[in-house]
Amino acid sequence: MKMISSANVACGFHAGDPHVMRHTVALAKENGVAVGAHPGLPDLMGFGRRDMKVSTDELKDYFVYQIGALKAFVEAAGMKMQHVKPHGALFKMSLDDGRLAVAMAEAAKEVDPEFIVMAPTGTVLIEGAQEVGLRVGREAYADRAYNLDKSLVNRSIPGAVIKDTESIKARIDQLMQTSTVTTIDGQTMELEFESICLHGDTPGAAELIQTIRGHVERLGVTVKNVAQII
Amino acid sequence: MKMISSANVACGFHAGDPHVMRHTVALAKENGVAVGAHPGLPDLMGFGRRDMKVSTDELKDYFVYQIGALKAFVEAAGMKMQHVKPHGALFKMSLDDGRLAVAMAEAAKEVDPEFIVMAPTGTVLIEGAQEVGLRVGREAYADRAYNLDKSLVNRSIPGAVIKDTESIKARIDQLMQTSTVTTIDGQTMELEFESICLHGDTPGAAELIQTIRGHVERLGVTVKNVAQII
Amino acid sequence: MKMISSANVACGFHAGDPHVMRHTVALAKENGVAVGAHPGLPDLMGFGRRDMKVSTDELKDYFVYQIGALKAFVEAAGMKMQHVKPHGALFKMSLDDGRLAVAMAEAAKEVDPEFIVMAPTGTVLIEGAQEVGLRVGREAYADRAYNLDKSLVNRSIPGAVIKDTESIKARIDQLMQTSTVTTIDGQTMELEFESICLHGDTPGAAELIQTIRGHVERLGVTVKNVAQII
Amino acid sequence: MKMISSANVACGFHAGDPHVMRHTVALAKENGVAVGAHPGLPDLMGFGRRDMKVSTDELKDYFVYQIGALKAFVEAAGMKMQHVKPHGALFKMSLDDGRLAVAMAEAAKEVDPEFIVMAPTGTVLIEGAQEVGLRVGREAYADRAYNLDKSLVNRSIPGAVIKDTESIKARIDQLMQTSTVTTIDGQTMELEFESICLHGDTPGAAELIQTIRGHVERLGVTVKNVAQII
Repeated sequence: MKMISSANVACGFHAGDPHVMRHTVALAKENGVAVGAHPGLPDLMGFGRRDMKVSTDELKDYFVYQIGALKAFVEAAGMKMQHVKPHGALFKMSLDDGRLAVAMAEAAKEVDPEFIVMAPTGTVLIEGAQEVGLRVGREAYADRAYNLDKSLVNRSIPGAVIKDTESIKARIDQLMQTSTVTTIDGQTMELEFESICLHGDTPGAAELIQTIRGHVERLGVTVKNVAQII
Repeated sequence: MKMISSANVACGFHAGDPHVMRHTVALAKENGVAVGAHPGLPDLMGFGRRDMKVSTDELKDYFVYQIGALKAFVEAAGMKMQHVKPHGALFKMSLDDGRLAVAMAEAAKEVDPEFIVMAPTGTVLIEGAQEVGLRVGREAYADRAYNLDKSLVNRSIPGAVIKDTESIKARIDQLMQTSTVTTIDGQTMELEFESICLHGDTPGAAELIQTIRGHVERLGVTVKNVAQII
Repeated sequence: MKMISSANVACGFHAGDPHVMRHTVALAKENGVAVGAHPGLPDLMGFGRRDMKVSTDELKDYFVYQIGALKAFVEAAGMKMQHVKPHGALFKMSLDDGRLAVAMAEAAKEVDPEFIVMAPTGTVLIEGAQEVGLRVGREAYADRAYNLDKSLVNRSIPGAVIKDTESIKARIDQLMQTSTVTTIDGQTMELEFESICLHGDTPGAAELIQTIRGHVERLGVTVKNVAQII
Repeated sequence: MKMISSANVACGFHAGDPHVMRHTVALAKENGVAVGAHPGLPDLMGFGRRDMKVSTDELKDYFVYQIGALKAFVEAAGMKMQHVKPHGALFKMSLDDGRLAVAMAEAAKEVDPEFIVMAPTGTVLIEGAQEVGLRVGREAYADRAYNLDKSLVNRSIPGAVIKDTESIKARIDQLMQTSTVTTIDGQTMELEFESICLHGDTPGAAELIQTIRGHVERLGVTVKNVAQII
């Protein structure tokens, strides 16, 4: 929490419960971290990571319910909820299916038209959010290789996950200074972004976030919440 | 829905789910019915009717979560959520334990200080809500016998549930004209109220509500949402 | 219950709970009905009808858990559990994917190698069950039209569901006397079976089952549990 | 697992799920550890530790369901399930209320009359199990202080939890050699037992179990499964 500026908080369907949510929001507040909803599929046993064939109506209802529940904790803490980002299989669905991406953005807007949708640069979720009139926070990854279509290289492919600290720093340099990234097959690709995304359950996440944040700040950049940038 | 002015909507812990909640809110809107949250214990198998020893902190977190979730659907429908009323075992706990009653009222206030707390006249939940600064909607029952302390006579006692239509009408006359009720042992007791409460799962509820509403309107009274009265 | 000889009982993941299971088993016993497990996906909100991408290992664990739970109630009632039949999306998966069908049969066998697997004639689930060494009970449908590959005609296609009582009786005559069925495009197709399957939630199920059972018995056939036939 | 002889395995209501159960049973098998069911209240958010007012019928249904589910995994692994021990609030209820203790024992017997009921020496659960005709495995605690009625001293009282290794060893000496324990107020009390119980989530559990087992074996005692002793 001390190292990040925006947190995605699970809302009870794939993980989290009312007590964990209250506690996480309080922790975020203490550390000046902006809170976003991280709604998932109703799949506690599978941590929301398994595809489920849900209709767009079901999807929207799951979003409204979960976002509303977290928003109540955030507002009870005297904060304003900043953003929404789908979790796990929903996240994957939001990248693969424009119709679902629009439905997610619509549901977020139903709850609050001032929400920001967070998603990787160049994805249909970014497009869907813009289509329905929500602001977006575009995410880049410092520790993941990219394909030429701006998708992340699948973890099963060698080189997909970048673990070497110097390589990560070099990628941050390139991202911050030129808004480009070198793809897995060596091409230079434009990649605009407002946020660098990190999974809390990546092994070595604590060290990685220190490397990333430390390097970003050494470049003279002040890390801010997404809402303060866009 | 056509006969009532305020509805208590389950929020997913003891009954209801995101789809049912969306649908019920839409139905309420169509019929001009004000919506309130009806949070319950996390006890789906027991329909929230079994006592659970939850701490006041746990209780508050369950309230904030569920109220927030329903509020999102209500606001997505372009309405304002009117009130909060605990369900089942929580309702019973709110009548028996002033400390829990205050906790429930505090949690409702955390989500929105403009919420009304609905509870039977003379209960500690009414007191708790007033103590934390929320408005209250006091409920009377037309089909239930009262004890002298304003509690309802336990259903296991003969005469606790009034089924005879003429008796119910007579009680409504007395309630509306004198704000009093005759207790089970024949005494006349003051009973101020803003709402007449009915359980949707009482056998014959549809006829009963027609009897009550019909009789109330024949007395020349216009039925309104609680928020329009207090 | 009075009309059927084998019942598929939900095991708590998509519907049912310990009390409902105990009660349903007791009802089956009273009526001399054989009980089978009807395991579903862990999807209470979707009644187990939505596809979920579960691994074969996950699938097997869901089967063992649910079958074991129901088996305990069946044995506590002094009965022997007769069969296993997947529910909803699992059922569809068992017809579409031979690998999953084998996994389901293996999981059933893990719990009891004497279980019968119930499935429509000609499906990969029948093959999977036979492959792992379980006995099978093949189901025919009297109120549904068939394709030439023995699959049921999709409900969205006109003529898929047969509602006319005389047509249903004629199909039963043909099934019972010749073990054939006329497909939707008019061809006569062999269809061996040990059971006629009916969904309890088909509109008019109570009348339909009387029509079917009455007609079967008028043909001089004694309806028995599957275990008594194979 | 390497240090214990009998394991209590959660069955999904308060913790555990089908995958965890399969995996834990496999781990127990690898280590020659006997498996018992550890059924809990349907209270995932509260880890089954909060009292719920369930009827004896509800209680029995929860037991049969959970015990049956775990038994299926145990038998699928080619083992025989050894025992049943209630978890958390159910455990507490089984010690406080003889009627509930009998109900639990009856439910265990419904699933398998050969089950052993594990419970602390001198409790109503031991009596209830014997009353319904089940065998019992009586537990002693090496790291907890006792009252004169054989109940454990409440953790909130100083001296309730014994942390000093030498004291624990001395208590084991006394237990093993004389079947007595010194109560918190210094009296010597008879305490027959077949098992020494340890909570896996006690801080320092791994060291504690090594201390206990090491010391027991140095006394020349061979640690066996309960089923091998009684």
